[in-house]
Amino acid sequence: MNSSIITIGDEILIGQVLNTNAAYLSTRLHSLGITVERMITVPDRETDILKEFKHSFNNYEVVIVTGGLGPTHDDITRKCILKFFKSKPVLDKKTLSNIKSIFHRRRIPMPENNVEQAMIAEISRALPNRIGTAPGILIEKKGKIFAALPGVPAEMKYIGENSLFPYLARSRRSLACDVIRFRTLHAIGIPESLLSQKIGDVSQIEFKNPDCQVKLAFLPGNFEVRLRISVFASSVSLAQKAIQASVRKIKSRVGEYIYSYDESPLEKVVGRLLRKRRLTLSVAESCTGGLIASKLTDVPGSSDYFLESFTVYSNESKVKLLGVKPATLKKFGAVSRQTAIEMAEGVRKLSGSDIGLSSTGIAGPSGGTKAKPVGLIWIGYSDRNGSFTKEFRFTKDRLRNKERMAKMALEILRRKLLGFKY
Amino acid sequence: MNSSIITIGDEILIGQVLNTNAAYLSTRLHSLGITVERMITVPDRETDILKEFKHSFNNYEVVIVTGGLGPTHDDITRKCILKFFKSKPVLDKKTLSNIKSIFHRRRIPMPENNVEQAMIAEISRALPNRIGTAPGILIEKKGKIFAALPGVPAEMKYIGENSLFPYLARSRRSLACDVIRFRTLHAIGIPESLLSQKIGDVSQIEFKNPDCQVKLAFLPGNFEVRLRISVFASSVSLAQKAIQASVRKIKSRVGEYIYSYDESPLEKVVGRLLRKRRLTLSVAESCTGGLIASKLTDVPGSSDYFLESFTVYSNESKVKLLGVKPATLKKFGAVSRQTAIEMAEGVRKLSGSDIGLSSTGIAGPSGGTKAKPVGLIWIGYSDRNGSFTKEFRFTKDRLRNKERMAKMALEILRRKLLGFKY
Repeated sequence: MNSSIITIGDEILIGQVLNTNAAYLSTRLHSLGITVERMITVPDRETDILKEFKHSFNNYEVVIVTGGLGPTHDDITRKCILKFFKSKPVLDKKTLSNIKSIFHRRRIPMPENNVEQAMIAEISRALPNRIGTAPGILIEKKGKIFAALPGVPAEMKYIGENSLFPYLARSRRSLACDVIRFRTLHAIGIPESLLSQKIGDVSQIEFKNPDCQVKLAFLPGNFEVRLRISVFASSVSLAQKAIQASVRKIKSRVGEYIYSYDESPLEKVVGRLLRKRRLTLSVAESCTGGLIASKLTDVPGSSDYFLESFTVYSNESKVKLLGVKPATLKKFGAVSRQTAIEMAEGVRKLSGSDIGLSSTGIAGPSGGTKAKPVGLIWIGYSDRNGSFTKEFRFTKDRLRNKERMAKMALEILRRKLLGFKY
Repeated sequence: MNSSIITIGDEILIGQVLNTNAAYLSTRLHSLGITVERMITVPDRETDILKEFKHSFNNYEVVIVTGGLGPTHDDITRKCILKFFKSKPVLDKKTLSNIKSIFHRRRIPMPENNVEQAMIAEISRALPNRIGTAPGILIEKKGKIFAALPGVPAEMKYIGENSLFPYLARSRRSLACDVIRFRTLHAIGIPESLLSQKIGDVSQIEFKNPDCQVKLAFLPGNFEVRLRISVFASSVSLAQKAIQASVRKIKSRVGEYIYSYDESPLEKVVGRLLRKRRLTLSVAESCTGGLIASKLTDVPGSSDYFLESFTVYSNESKVKLLGVKPATLKKFGAVSRQTAIEMAEGVRKLSGSDIGLSSTGIAGPSGGTKAKPVGLIWIGYSDRNGSFTKEFRFTKDRLRNKERMAKMALEILRRKLLGFKY
């Protein structure tokens, strides 16, 4: 079963917004065994939209459209669907009552133009959207499937997960499709080239089976490398066996760098380790400015092991709150191995936690000196057995530095908890 | 002058890599006055590639291709170019010597398959790539421009900035092109439909000038609405005048909801206000878990006004650190108006800052009760003149709740500083 994803919207074409919707849809479609063979973005212009509807609907079995379902004049997807399928608009009562209840919840009277969103093609059915006013639209015709979803990512995902993907999964079963399975592992702290050298070729080792093909892709980005195993097989059980064998092979070769086998983010992996060992954590952040804490608290239930964090930007608060010695700051400076240690120890004692983590550094883009350039960062770790620090040298990009540092702090914690070298 | 951007590569189609190249190229092309009217991704498959080359070359004045120029068997863009333009491959000596020098620098002997990269269509010329082995390829035919760039973002940018964009800028001048200008305003705290109703149609008001067309788009997402003004005009000065007039019009109608006229994020806007008024800020976070602090410290120089933040997950730390009264916690609970107030007052006093902000709530996905459901959030504000709180009811999605809450806390601060109702 193949598909085409059509994105409607000038904001993508002018380069202002990345097309994350198409990537998301594609990942989900592939997991259902539907290949994506075309991704196209067209302007908010009727002729372009209709031309592409025609091309995609004629050439692919599934067509997914996102964008242009809002209530304003520049949202013309609904209109184009009516034209393309030569279907008249009818009021969908459930949709209208959902729109009304959303405005009711917000305590705002519903503007008249929102009613438009409940007028959908007679040939279609509405896919409910509980978090926004635009419903999804689903049409089956000539054995093909055409669906339109809102462009707001959370709404697109909501409708996808709750109605479109389950529907596609049911439709798919009636067709004879090959099985496609993906598995993505996350590696950190090792360059892509070295990782690839150490792993070698996963596909050649176990799968000379002509009914099963294994591909391994290295996807570097966001300060880690994702390893994507793709399996194309004649049956689900064969695909699962191939995935498992590949995972074992990779684990035996580079296991300590793989922090996640199930797409869990690093903060969740670290949280699991802390909970399992009944350890508590507190954090003192200078250059990461709250980002380590924010990552940790992204995980539901993190209050089980995460006690407190302090963002201490000034020397004064490092001394007053965390008990960093004024003499240390004077002699070595705020960005130093010694200050990082005292911050980690200080926050551990102040919070009464088992482990203290700290960050201090020069996040940039300016503020460096020759001895302490922008991008110089110290991560501190402390528990009752002792303390240590690790030095990093990153770039001048403040946001990237913060992200990378916060990840490195969590990775140091992971390696320490698992007994790996850090 | 219009254009089409073709991305070649399965890695985009399966959804694991975002198409950042297309967004980058588009931004640069628009700055040169070239509109992008099509962005398409096709698989590494000859028939699909040739079909798309034909469509784009027939329908657009500029065609930019990225990807598939590497040295391995699955890189087929060069081959497709030869076929499509019916041109034979010739050795480009400069390219070959560049490839050789790159391997020399890396101290690796050059593999034979890299020579292929220097064999380009006779009809084309090579665009030098100093940082990788694949040259760009440029073809002019029938008054149209066709260019292929490598898919590695840094190499694509290198060739773009150093040869393709300067070339396009020169070509453009010889044609009678319109000027295109964009301006994006950011609005918060108002639904898209209401915003659009209050603004009305900007384009109709001042610009009945046939040499100037104004478009206004509403782009909701990430708990705000971006308003993009697009102007197509016969001269730069006319375009600028139209942008300014549109901005004035929007400001007069919905000014208090517009937090940014220059794409500055909310944390930067708030930071500017605090710096200007010489006010300092500290934050006590419960359910936002460090995210407010992390946003504030994303801004370079935020240490001028941002003193400290505390992530206080437990009741104990709310009492011990911030001086929240045990009786308040007992009587009203941690998630309450009273606790939010005492947290904001407590952090202000502890830090000696002019303003204290606080958050407390049930971020989700679980942990709610009937009286206090998941998504119930209080933001607290305190300065020496007094304190107040604001209640929000969001959803069950933890990460979205955190993001939205952090934004709302900053927006309340902005409105308070500017004297708007909050």
